This record gives sequence, structure tokens and C-alpha cells, in this order.
Amino acid sequence: MSRAKFGVLVIVCAALCAASVLPLVSPAARAQTSLANDPKLVEDLVYANRILYQQAVLDGFGHVSARSDKDPSHFLMSRSMAPGLVTSNDIMEFDKDGEPVDARGRNAYTERYIHAAIYRVRPDVKAVVHSHSPDIIPFSVTGTILRPLYHVSAFLRLGAPIFDTQEGFGDTDMLIRDNKLGDALAKALGNSGIALIRGHGFVAVADSTPIVVYRAIYTQTNARVQAEGMRLGTIKYLTPGEAVKAQAIVEATVGRPWELWKSQVGKIE
Amino acid sequence: MSRAKFGVLVIVCAALCAASVLPLVSPAARAQTSLANDPKLVEDLVYANRILYQQAVLDGFGHVSARSDKDPSHFLMSRSMAPGLVTSNDIMEFDKDGEPVDARGRNAYTERYIHAAIYRVRPDVKAVVHSHSPDIIPFSVTGTILRPLYHVSAFLRLGAPIFDTQEGFGDTDMLIRDNKLGDALAKALGNSGIALIRGHGFVAVADSTPIVVYRAIYTQTNARVQAEGMRLGTIKYLTPGEAVKAQAIVEATVGRPWELWKSQVGKIE
Amino acid sequence: MSRAKFGVLVIVCAALCAASVLPLVSPAARAQTSLANDPKLVEDLVYANRILYQQAVLDGFGHVSARSDKDPSHFLMSRSMAPGLVTSNDIMEFDKDGEPVDARGRNAYTERYIHAAIYRVRPDVKAVVHSHSPDIIPFSVTGTILRPLYHVSAFLRLGAPIFDTQEGFGDTDMLIRDNKLGDALAKALGNSGIALIRGHGFVAVADSTPIVVYRAIYTQTNARVQAEGMRLGTIKYLTPGEAVKAQAIVEATVGRPWELWKSQVGKIE
Amino acid sequence: MSRAKFGVLVIVCAALCAASVLPLVSPAARAQTSLANDPKLVEDLVYANRILYQQAVLDGFGHVSARSDKDPSHFLMSRSMAPGLVTSNDIMEFDKDGEPVDARGRNAYTERYIHAAIYRVRPDVKAVVHSHSPDIIPFSVTGTILRPLYHVSAFLRLGAPIFDTQEGFGDTDMLIRDNKLGDALAKALGNSGIALIRGHGFVAVADSTPIVVYRAIYTQTNARVQAEGMRLGTIKYLTPGEAVKAQAIVEATVGRPWELWKSQVGKIE
Repeated sequence: MSRAKFGVLVIVCAALCAASVLPLVSPAARAQTSLANDPKLVEDLVYANRILYQQAVLDGFGHVSARSDKDPSHFLMSRSMAPGLVTSNDIMEFDKDGEPVDARGRNAYTERYIHAAIYRVRPDVKAVVHSHSPDIIPFSVTGTILRPLYHVSAFLRLGAPIFDTQEGFGDTDMLIRDNKLGDALAKALGNSGIALIRGHGFVAVADSTPIVVYRAIYTQTNARVQAEGMRLGTIKYLTPGEAVKAQAIVEATVGRPWELWKSQVGKIE
Repeated sequence: MSRAKFGVLVIVCAALCAASVLPLVSPAARAQTSLANDPKLVEDLVYANRILYQQAVLDGFGHVSARSDKDPSHFLMSRSMAPGLVTSNDIMEFDKDGEPVDARGRNAYTERYIHAAIYRVRPDVKAVVHSHSPDIIPFSVTGTILRPLYHVSAFLRLGAPIFDTQEGFGDTDMLIRDNKLGDALAKALGNSGIALIRGHGFVAVADSTPIVVYRAIYTQTNARVQAEGMRLGTIKYLTPGEAVKAQAIVEATVGRPWELWKSQVGKIE
Repeated sequence: MSRAKFGVLVIVCAALCAASVLPLVSPAARAQTSLANDPKLVEDLVYANRILYQQAVLDGFGHVSARSDKDPSHFLMSRSMAPGLVTSNDIMEFDKDGEPVDARGRNAYTERYIHAAIYRVRPDVKAVVHSHSPDIIPFSVTGTILRPLYHVSAFLRLGAPIFDTQEGFGDTDMLIRDNKLGDALAKALGNSGIALIRGHGFVAVADSTPIVVYRAIYTQTNARVQAEGMRLGTIKYLTPGEAVKAQAIVEATVGRPWELWKSQVGKIE
Repeated sequence: MSRAKFGVLVIVCAALCAASVLPLVSPAARAQTSLANDPKLVEDLVYANRILYQQAVLDGFGHVSARSDKDPSHFLMSRSMAPGLVTSNDIMEFDKDGEPVDARGRNAYTERYIHAAIYRVRPDVKAVVHSHSPDIIPFSVTGTILRPLYHVSAFLRLGAPIFDTQEGFGDTDMLIRDNKLGDALAKALGNSGIALIRGHGFVAVADSTPIVVYRAIYTQTNARVQAEGMRLGTIKYLTPGEAVKAQAIVEATVGRPWELWKSQVGKIE
């Protein structure tokens, strides 16, 4: 069977399975559906999952969330699964403490507290990405600070602190698995656009889903470029004045790459 | 089938496809179409957008233009959008000052003055690429000069100066957003085939669309090769004599990779 | 559709496809089929071959095996062919000495003794990967020890010794082509999760096929990240305490990337 | 139009164009067809072109040839075009001096003398690749000698001399554009399996098309691995004894990756 035919089969089976599951959905679940957020918010969140996988910011691990527009103390995020496979049916709602509103047997990511903690203290933040990008790890484990080399990563001017769970928590499993760890990470993040987590990865935050995707992608690119620049010589980074101005103009044009990234993902469900 | 015949076929198909959408075109659009340039010029420009995206010289940002053959003081370039999605309907005409001739509500790239300024002072230039290539940024921010390592990048013998907006303009948003900045960049470019822009990217220029695409691609490759060569030892670059001769012969065979790149893009609209 | 249901669907489809080719299967083959292991074990092994090729851990060379569930002293592995092309019909059974149980003219990999030797002395091991990954070779030939930089490669805490055939065997063809060499490699491996082979590649072992695939992939990623980290500065590796805890939690979630990797491979036969 | 449909269109058009060209074919050409080599030789040569493009050993430039089996003083090679697009209709025959036997208006590669010269003095050589691989250029311009790091590149034991046109020819266009340059390159190659050309690329030779493809691919991989190994520490290369034995065994299994590479290219014409 060709891959194209297999794709069709999967779609057909997905439809059949979706149908067969319907009778199992409780009235409560239906109620939850009626409380759903703006469909555009969910759609953008599904695209964000797929785009971040396609751009290699996420692999089988990592996650992305968006603040709820119905209840701004809540947020939306996929059930525990690989981001590259997420569909709108996988999006769950979480309360301000990071607990699922209506789990219906679906597993949640262990590290949902990263998101909950940041949404609690950063009202300006509408979307959060957590990634294990291999381009970022070398910076996180050597204490090398990411700085903006060029206009598209000017948002790094807001800071890129490195959070280390060893300091304050000792030997952990490295996961941000509760609100205490989440709060400590959120505190380290402060007002920055990203924070690195030693031996683990990074978080990116922004006031929209397209911008947080944008920041996660260009954080990764800046890391590659900075590592190479440090080998070539002494880097002239953006000045603070340049960075303020460049960030404003570049992030205002995020719709341009966003449409491209969506087109590369193709149709979502 | 010869390359030439295949090219003709593509044109025929493009024409058929164009014809099939004609009934949807408004009278205003027809008027603009009647002023249109050689269809081959537009077609090559659309291919240039798609090729440069596929070859990772451009991502969601960057642009490529071609000098008009109807009015050589004018140039053609896409409306403000990701190059990887450009179709012939997106191509706009700009005057010598970089202003759209007939915008009809379409947004133009903020940095169209890069193109306008270069076309004003370089009558030999028929096409311009502007890219944020991550391979070039490390050179631009460390003052490392790109030099031709091998015959396919021999055009670098013409120079690869680094333009820095700090010198003369202080803290800007890093964009070449007006004719003053454009003129300064064009002056820095001089008679070179490319110029780097500190903390921003580079421009490539040439006397045809295929050659400017070729130069942009091999500027990027030369950067990767040069960075690696500098780590391995002392590089023996092309001598000036070798570079003059190699450039002449290699650029005369640009049709060979151009046909390949077009085939990788597939059908355009 | 849940991951579990999707898995079931794939099995159902695989069964249907298998059924459709049954009339072509000879009586001899049927006999062998009747001795076959759990179909899930074979299916996972075929996926492992395809995934490791797609993730660039294997190229035209290398192999992956799984311990038999019918006779735990035996193991299953493809006939001698490129892993990226393996189907269930290519899976052969080998005895504890690495000899085919029923070759029927099919060639076996010369290095099947890698697998046999490890299964003999490591009852905890249920799957083995052997790769020539270009990311690992530089470590193997410079005596650089792989160590866990981040939580997803915490299993490296178990050790990553470098086995050198020169020590004890002198000038060989570098292949682990008999049980003596296999035993020496298995001894070097000890209780580790991986072992490097000087000028050759590495082996990864685990107690399931998904986990051995996982370990092989992240061994490779850790190598890239470690090499880059060593260039940036002094690396703070996972502490032993962190690594124990991180390994336990991360390997318990292997189903997440495994479903992704399978989906990227598509339908197998 | 989808890319798949476009592919069909190209095939249809190719058929039509081929048909339309037929009446232009002279009786002499028909005679030449009747003298054609073993179809398997031509098929392997077309695959070699496509594989080397797909494996990024060749891009829009470079070429691969095979010694004729009808007249061993002759060789077969594509007309001047991008290797990634070559079909069996593009294969031309060349005499011992590198001149086309029956050009019929088709252009030949300027550097066909690389092939002619090597076939003249190396009766053991049945196939030749010429590549501009960016992984090899840094070695060629810094005088860094490629040496075998692992068993799959053991053929590098035969030597990897660097040929520099400056020595003996002064400032040239860097191309091996006549038999004098070809002879000098062939002399530098000696009995090696590959030779680097300063500021230009490399040649690989072997006694079969699959093996020359194999050597070209693993020369490139060895270069990447060697550069990284040199950064990590002091490399323990294969000993001469190991390399002799490893080359013999590995090159005997070239059919394994060859089938994989062919499957990745898909159907050729």
C-alpha cells in the first residue's frame, strides 16, 4: 500500500473511530464542548504543535499551550502525546493550578506546571512553548548566555536566564513536575521572552500563539548562529537601542512566516 | 527532451494555467496586466522566490527582485509575503524610488529600498536578492570577510563588504527602510556581487535572475566551507587570476543548476 | 483516536495485508510462520528497522534485533539487507550462538554475533541496535567518553565504554564476526546501555524494542550536543542522582515518541 | 496543479517530445543505438547520477561515468546537464581522448577529460565520479589529508592526494578542460581510490559503478567525521592492516546500500 493510500486509510479510520467513540462521550463532555474557546484559538494551537515539530523545535517531546479566552486564568494544551500528531480533538483545558478541567481519561503532560506557573504571574503572556532543542542544550549546560545577533532574534534583548533545578531543589528528575518547581522557573523567567533550563531545554513566552512559535524558532536559529560566531571571532551584538526597535518591527510582521509555516504543515484536523 | 524545450513546455503550461484563471481577473487587474513585462521575466522571478526558499537562502523573510524590461528604471518584486508562497499574481511593479506603481491595496516589503537604491546606481544589475541566511550572519557580526574558496564561488572576488547601519545611522531598527539607508548600502556594495549587512543578512546582485539566485546559493555554501576551512588550517583561496577565469566559465553554465532547481520546485502559478 | 486504538488499527491493517499475500507463501514458509513469535514483536522489529533508518541512526548498514519470546535464548533479526527496506518477511530467527534456525537460503548479517553474545550474558536485554552513526565515530576514535547532558539521554549514566578490537585481537577487519569478538564486546559493554566500538560505531541495548530505538536515537543526539557543548565551555553534566531519576521517568514515556516515529514511517509490510 | 500531476505531465510531455525528436535522428544515430552497451551498465549509470544527487555528493554540477563494456577504451557519461535529472536518453559515448563518438548536437561536459585521462592509465577503473562536495573543499584548500577513521571508509588507505592546478599550470579557470590537465590529475591520483582537487572538489574511482558511488558517499562522510574528530582530540585512525581487511569485506557488501539508494531514487527512465 502506498503512503498516500495509507494516509487516506488513516483519515477514514480516524473518522470511523471518532464515530465509534461518540457514544462513549458523557453529557458532561458535551457540556464542556459547548464551553469551548474561540475555534481560531484551538486551530492556531494545533498548527503551533505541528509547525514546531516540522521546524524541529519539538520532537517526540515538548509542548505548547495558549491562554483561554473564555477564562483567562485557564489555558489550553494537548493531552500527553507527540506534538507532531496533535489534532483539535486532543486539546484539553487546564485550570490555574495546571489541573485538567475535564480529563475524561486523557493523560496530561507531567510538566503542565511550567505553563500554569507562567500564566499565573505573567498576565501579558498568552502562549507558552517548552522545548528540548538540541541547539539550546549546549548553552544551558555551559552557562553561555544567548544574546541577539540579528534583527529577527531581537526579542532576546528581554533576557535569556538559565534556570537550574539543582539550585533550590537538589537532585530531581529534571522535570518541572509541580507548582513549586513551576513557580521557581517562572520567577527565573521574570519578564524575559525565554528562559533556558539547565540540562533540559527552554521555554518561550509571548502574547500570541504565532509570536511564541516565532520566538521558539528564532531562539534556536540564534543559538546556532551565536555558537558559530563565537568560533569566528568577537561578536558585535545588537545594541540595546537597535534591539528595541528591531523587535517591534519584526514581530509586527509575524503573519508572513506564520502563513508559510501553516502551508508547510498542510491541512489539520 | 532538451532543457530549452522543457523550458518552453513550462511556459506553455504556465500560460494555460494563467488563461484558466483569467475570467476571475478584474478589469483593473487586466489594465495592469496589459502593462506587464515579458512573461518570462515574471516567471523567472516567481521561480527565484520558490527556489531560494527551497534552498534555504530565504525563509519566511527576505525577497528577490528583477529589473523591468519595459521601463529599466523600474523593478518587479512580490507583494509583502513569504517568498516560498509567491505566485505570478503577487508580483508588483516599483518605480525608481521604490514606490509601487499600482499597489491596489497590496502591501509592499518595508525594505524595497534595498532594491531601488541598487538599481539606481548599478545599471549592470538586473536582479537583486536580500536574505537573512544564518550561515552569513556569523561573518557579518565578526567582521570576517568572505573570500572565494573554490571555483563555483569565484564571483566573491568582486568583494563582499560589510555594511553596518550603526556607522552613519546609529541605533535603527536594522531595516533598510528608506532611500537614504538604501543609498548607503548601495554605496558600500560598490561594484561587488554581494554585500553583507551587519546583524541582518546580505544582498546579492547580478545581471540576470538565474545568476543572482546562483550567487545567493553559493555565497551561503562558501560561508559554510570557509568557516570549516578556517578551523582546519590556513586556507589557500583562489588567486585573483584563477577567480577571474573561473567566474567567467562557471557563470556561463548557470542554466545547468537553474533547470535542476526549477524541477525541484515543480509547477508554479 | 487514542494511540492504543491506532496501534490496534495498524495491526489489523497489517494482518489484512499479510492475509492478502498468504496464497503466495510456500508450505515451507507456512511451517516457519507457525513457529513464529508474537506478531507484535515482529511488527515492532520491522518498525525499529524503518525508524532507525529514517532517523539516520542506520544507513545502508547496521541492524537491530529482538529477543525471541518463544525461546528466550533465541533472537529475531532481518536477513542481510538495508534496514530501511526490511519487511516482516525478512525477519529470521537465530539461536544462542548466532546461527540461523531456518535460513532457507537467506544471508545473515556477518555481525550477528554482536547480538548473540549480548543476549547470552544480559538476560535483562530484549533488544539490540548496532549502528555506524557518523556522530558517534569521532568519540570512538578519540577516546572521548559520552556522558548525559540532559534528561532524555540520562541512560548514558549506565556507561558508554569504548571497545577496541586492537586490544586482544590486533589487526582485524573491524567486524564483530564471531563469538569470540562478540563475547569481548559484551564483556566491555558490561551493564551499560551502550558501548562504542573504536573506528566502527556503537551498540545500544534495552529491555524493549521501543526503548532500544529511543536510546540509539538519543545517544546520537547527545553526541552532537556534547561535542558542541565542549566547544562552548565547561559542561555541567547531569549528577548521578539526577540521571537515575530522569532515566526512570523519561523511559516510562517512550510510547510518546514511538507513536510519532511509527507515524513517520507509515504503513509497513 | 499538484506536484504529482505535474510529474505525470512531465512524463507524458517527455514521451511526446521524444517522439517528436525521433524523425531528426540520423541513420548513424540509429546505428549507434544498435551498438549500445549492456542496458544494465546504462541503467546503473543513470541510477548513479540520481543517487549522487540525492545523497548530496553532486548538486547542479559534477558528473559520473562508466567504462564501456563494448569498447573498453571508451566510456559512457551524460550530456552536459544536472545529474539529478539524467535519463538513459542523455547518456553519450566518449572515445579514449574524451571526445563524443556521436554528439548529435548534444553538449558534453567541459571536464570530460578527467574521465578520459583516468580510463587511459587505470585499466582497473570501471567508473569515475567528479564532485564539488562542500565537505571536501575545506580539506583541499588547507592541505589536510583525508584518512580512514572507520571501516566503511577503509578505501581511503589507498591514498587521497591533493592535486593543485597552480603547480604546473599557474592561473587557470580551475577546470580540468583538456587532456594535459587530465593527465596531470591522473598522475596525481596514481593508484589511489580518490584524489582531491584544490579549490574545486574531488574524483573517486572504482572497478564498478556501485562501488564508485559508495566511495564518493563515504569519502564525504569520512570528511565530516574526521573534521569533528580533529576538534575532539587525537584520532586513532585505522591501522594499515585493519584498513586492508576492512576494505575487502565492506566493499564486498556494497549491494546492500546500493539497493537502498536505488529504492530512494525510485523509478528511472
